[in-house]
Amino acid sequence: MALLRSYVNGRWHTPTVDGQPLHDAVTGEEVCTVSSAGVDFAAALDHGRRVGGPALRELTFHQRAALLKTVASMLREHREELYGLSARTGATKTDSMVDIDGGIGVLFSFSSKGRRELPNDTVYVDGDVEPLGKAGTFLGQHIHTPLRGVAVQINAFNFPMWGPLEKFAPAFVAGVPSLIKPASQTAYLTARMVELIIESGLLPEGSLQFVAGSAGDLLDHLTEQDLVGFTGSASTAQRLRAHPVVVSRSVRFNAEADSLNCSILGPDAKPGTTEFDLYVKQLVSEMTVKAGQKCTAIRRAFVPADLMDAVAEAASERLAKVKVGNPAAEGVRMGALASLEQREEVRRSLKGLLEAGRVVFGDAEKVDLVDADATRGAFMSPVLLRADDADLPQPHEVEAFGPVSTLLPYTSTEQVVELAARGQGSLVGSVVTADAGFARDVVLGVAPWHGRLLVLDADDAKESTGHGSPLPMLIHGGPGRAGGGEEMGGIRGVLHHMQRTAVQASPKVLSAVTNRWVAGADRNVDGVHPFRKSLAQLKIGDTVVAGPRPVSMADIEHFAEFTGDTFYAHMDEDAAKANPFFDGRVAHGYLIVSFAAGLFVSPEPGPVLANYGLENLRFLTPVYPGDELTVTLTAKQITPREANDYGEVRWDADVTNQNGDSVAKYDVLTLVAK
Amino acid sequence: MALLRSYVNGRWHTPTVDGQPLHDAVTGEEVCTVSSAGVDFAAALDHGRRVGGPALRELTFHQRAALLKTVASMLREHREELYGLSARTGATKTDSMVDIDGGIGVLFSFSSKGRRELPNDTVYVDGDVEPLGKAGTFLGQHIHTPLRGVAVQINAFNFPMWGPLEKFAPAFVAGVPSLIKPASQTAYLTARMVELIIESGLLPEGSLQFVAGSAGDLLDHLTEQDLVGFTGSASTAQRLRAHPVVVSRSVRFNAEADSLNCSILGPDAKPGTTEFDLYVKQLVSEMTVKAGQKCTAIRRAFVPADLMDAVAEAASERLAKVKVGNPAAEGVRMGALASLEQREEVRRSLKGLLEAGRVVFGDAEKVDLVDADATRGAFMSPVLLRADDADLPQPHEVEAFGPVSTLLPYTSTEQVVELAARGQGSLVGSVVTADAGFARDVVLGVAPWHGRLLVLDADDAKESTGHGSPLPMLIHGGPGRAGGGEEMGGIRGVLHHMQRTAVQASPKVLSAVTNRWVAGADRNVDGVHPFRKSLAQLKIGDTVVAGPRPVSMADIEHFAEFTGDTFYAHMDEDAAKANPFFDGRVAHGYLIVSFAAGLFVSPEPGPVLANYGLENLRFLTPVYPGDELTVTLTAKQITPREANDYGEVRWDADVTNQNGDSVAKYDVLTLVAK
Repeated sequence: MALLRSYVNGRWHTPTVDGQPLHDAVTGEEVCTVSSAGVDFAAALDHGRRVGGPALRELTFHQRAALLKTVASMLREHREELYGLSARTGATKTDSMVDIDGGIGVLFSFSSKGRRELPNDTVYVDGDVEPLGKAGTFLGQHIHTPLRGVAVQINAFNFPMWGPLEKFAPAFVAGVPSLIKPASQTAYLTARMVELIIESGLLPEGSLQFVAGSAGDLLDHLTEQDLVGFTGSASTAQRLRAHPVVVSRSVRFNAEADSLNCSILGPDAKPGTTEFDLYVKQLVSEMTVKAGQKCTAIRRAFVPADLMDAVAEAASERLAKVKVGNPAAEGVRMGALASLEQREEVRRSLKGLLEAGRVVFGDAEKVDLVDADATRGAFMSPVLLRADDADLPQPHEVEAFGPVSTLLPYTSTEQVVELAARGQGSLVGSVVTADAGFARDVVLGVAPWHGRLLVLDADDAKESTGHGSPLPMLIHGGPGRAGGGEEMGGIRGVLHHMQRTAVQASPKVLSAVTNRWVAGADRNVDGVHPFRKSLAQLKIGDTVVAGPRPVSMADIEHFAEFTGDTFYAHMDEDAAKANPFFDGRVAHGYLIVSFAAGLFVSPEPGPVLANYGLENLRFLTPVYPGDELTVTLTAKQITPREANDYGEVRWDADVTNQNGDSVAKYDVLTLVAK
Repeated sequence: MALLRSYVNGRWHTPTVDGQPLHDAVTGEEVCTVSSAGVDFAAALDHGRRVGGPALRELTFHQRAALLKTVASMLREHREELYGLSARTGATKTDSMVDIDGGIGVLFSFSSKGRRELPNDTVYVDGDVEPLGKAGTFLGQHIHTPLRGVAVQINAFNFPMWGPLEKFAPAFVAGVPSLIKPASQTAYLTARMVELIIESGLLPEGSLQFVAGSAGDLLDHLTEQDLVGFTGSASTAQRLRAHPVVVSRSVRFNAEADSLNCSILGPDAKPGTTEFDLYVKQLVSEMTVKAGQKCTAIRRAFVPADLMDAVAEAASERLAKVKVGNPAAEGVRMGALASLEQREEVRRSLKGLLEAGRVVFGDAEKVDLVDADATRGAFMSPVLLRADDADLPQPHEVEAFGPVSTLLPYTSTEQVVELAARGQGSLVGSVVTADAGFARDVVLGVAPWHGRLLVLDADDAKESTGHGSPLPMLIHGGPGRAGGGEEMGGIRGVLHHMQRTAVQASPKVLSAVTNRWVAGADRNVDGVHPFRKSLAQLKIGDTVVAGPRPVSMADIEHFAEFTGDTFYAHMDEDAAKANPFFDGRVAHGYLIVSFAAGLFVSPEPGPVLANYGLENLRFLTPVYPGDELTVTLTAKQITPREANDYGEVRWDADVTNQNGDSVAKYDVLTLVAK
């Protein structure tokens, strides 16, 4: 690993020059050198577009999701090796778990979401069919198709595994190839991870490329179908966002920048309460995990003015117990910053913060270390500040990207909401309180400035994943200073890589485009009951029409007696008439759907295994005694499972009366054998 | 109307200088002058943020939607006056309808969507609750809250009413104040519309401001909570997108730029077919409506190579019948361009196009006019070109923003998909074909380059709104050259103005934040059946628990016989056992929900008026003979209607067996009197 290699254009590229040396954050030894010299960025993008994209688009969402899972399992087998490399970045075992296991977890999560929430198909259907005319011959439907470019992913040094993987996973499920460019400082861990993936041969060639070193002229070669996902400093985000090609080609640009995140202690959470302890514990944990080098760490700790001393004292006490030093040494809870340069940067920022506050705990220049040397390794003590005038600008503007936080007092809900907003946009905020009303006021007050908000209390503390942890099913990103972007968020993150298009067409054409039967499209009534067709034989549009079946007053009364549902609209003519929606006694909705099932069912054993649910049921016209019901059941969507010998079939059910009016419409959900 | 006024900061502002004269597009007479001199843009933004925003946020989505409707109705009363002003922009009566009635229609549409698809509340809940832990004490939920800034809306000259209104409507429903800045050329029509709205007093002060003239230093005063919505040229879009404040504050920037939209004739649509005629008719219509000054107009008309002559001939024949001249004159179908400068611009672009093609119809320098003078009014003839080498760059790159289109040949589906993409991103494309397979291939092939795609055929032609018409329920915008933005799209357009935030909390807190009962939150069982509570009395969490009721084999057999649902899983022990999901005969799903209704219902007349539907029903555990069912029904969401004396109540239904396992979960939808 003397020279980090890039993987572009279908092969490993060794840099043509020696490049920049990278140093072990703990010992100061050289780990390797990094350079992207000689990488042909235009060719790499082209390779992604011409080889990776088409290969991915051959697969369905489910197939891509299944591949992610195999990659995740493979990486899990190599955790120990990756932990070893991670330690060289200054990370403790716990820090490494956040990065490595967290990254692998994102793959598993997107794999699972992809299979559960996306169709086993290549097109995503977004929202309902929009009727665009009264006769139903002209419909609108939004669909998503994968962008035809490459997702360029520029990552930060602090999460060399999780960072690349949380961008790669949704792109991959979307069907868009990735080009990963990590920050150089810790790129050796990312490089090894990519090597494992490429060597496994699990992924289609071109779906994952990797550049170690600088991005060179990469952005100059972007087109309107490429995307840029950036994590890092606000200033770099601005520079990339204003890149002439990004601007002129309207390149989709997503930035996630570190921000001045806040944590708010509720006025109810006095010393001695569970919430007080939770607040202090979380504050200390956010200061020290990854040595505070997290975009999501707490920088501003808002505390009721009368609790400032108590929090300062309790936090200092906890901080005093945190052993700093060699991550490999017993009992060490905080490792090194990523580099000596990084530590200098933190010390510089700290000076800015000291214009508005004073130190409560720690010394940026001095720290007791376990099995380590602060002149070689990038170690520093956690530093807690307090700024008793919360109106001063520095705590809201200056970020020390290390184990540094500032306590700030507040005296009212309105004030703390305003103070939180002075961060000008944050990735995350937290509120620690047992008062649901206070939580609501703060959450709704500060939500426009936040991508994520955690409310921590005795109820959720045990399961809480904490202030600093983005989760794959929730969005990660925030407005303003935090970059204005949005990553992950479950399927939302997949859709970020796809183009939404409104399709206007006749029902027949819309069915052909979306691979879902749409009301108004042709129905196939071929004499074979669709319940007798296996998943492979069944086609969308296959239909059974059954009925009519009359509904008598005796049926209604019998159903009421049998089920116990004697609601007056079914039982009392006068009361029913007085109801604004009925002209007299009506049949139960449940009776209608039960009779409909009796009509459409094909009772003998066959490929239909079970009715597992029902959706979007609406009762549209009252059914009166004497009405006759007909049901039309049409196969609407067919979703074979990759890993089972059956799949889901969604049926459109339309129950009509003797006048042809729909009395109930709904989707019936069944499992059908392949 | 000598000097156009702005409406900012709660009052009408008369410019401090005379400003730029605006001329009647038909007669060349001066209509008025326009200038924003003296407008304090910083104060205007501040006024929107401090007065308009808070006033809007006091209202629920439904209340805002209702206000939009009253504004729409008011404007409809003034249509004749607005038509008069519209004619001075060169618009025919039909053109004016697109702009004026179209704009009013957008208000009605957002009003209706807002009431039907949004809660009668101030917070929008996005997607399902995400379980974040196994015990259910820690949940995630995405919410949307209105941005706290101003939606700055910079519009183009071609739709002085529709343009501002399609941006204003979703912002207003979202709870975000608007600042409308129209293009100067036709600003007098926008000014009059705004005057009517302001004078009506219907809207909260500060929710709508208006600047006539240049945008001055407006963008310098934006913050991370403001938005910019821009419609106009690609070059201006690029300049604004790269504005230092937009970049450094991550200001949400949405651009909609005119693009080189295509229309594709299918190979099946030979002369004599309905689709051939539809194609030619639409092409001519898109060339001549608004004198082709639409960002959505067809610039590239792709035709099977062997049909080029036939299409050229048929289109020319139709174009020859289009009378050009004074929009007020009888029979005139195409009016003037917006200004003499605009005409010069079109003629310049045409020269570029002629490097790759030749004229099939029309003469840019010469036109027969009805009751008009081409030296005073900005008239020109429609010009149809053909470029027999479709690979030449000009037709894919040069836009003549007037009545100009180019015919281009293609020979295969793959080729036409590639050619369409050469526009580098378009607002809209259309495919005219009777072949659903061809339509599917083209739509899925070109979708990543398009915001909207229309498939036109004999089935939908009668109801089709045409290639060039964006619709409020569908997104408008496109990737790349089209600006990379997205407007309207129904509720999507509302959400563009809101911040999405992932909230992590316990069920109790999440219920408080979202105003929806969440599983795991407290239930209120106070002895009063919740069906006996009016909408005003009912609170989320109000619950009835009923049961247990045993289910016997006799019940199952009786239900089967009564409904006709004799599916083998209910009737045949051996066959049921052979099914992978059952251990023997099971109760019908419909029996379970029917019995549950019999348990939870409160039969006597009361506030509950009707069960109008059911959602998200899932059968989770089989029910075997001898099992006992208990149902827990909890008020989940309460939606009073603004205009009725009842509202919707959504109930959470959880049916459990004797072991406490859920056998079915679903939402029951009812109407309840206030």
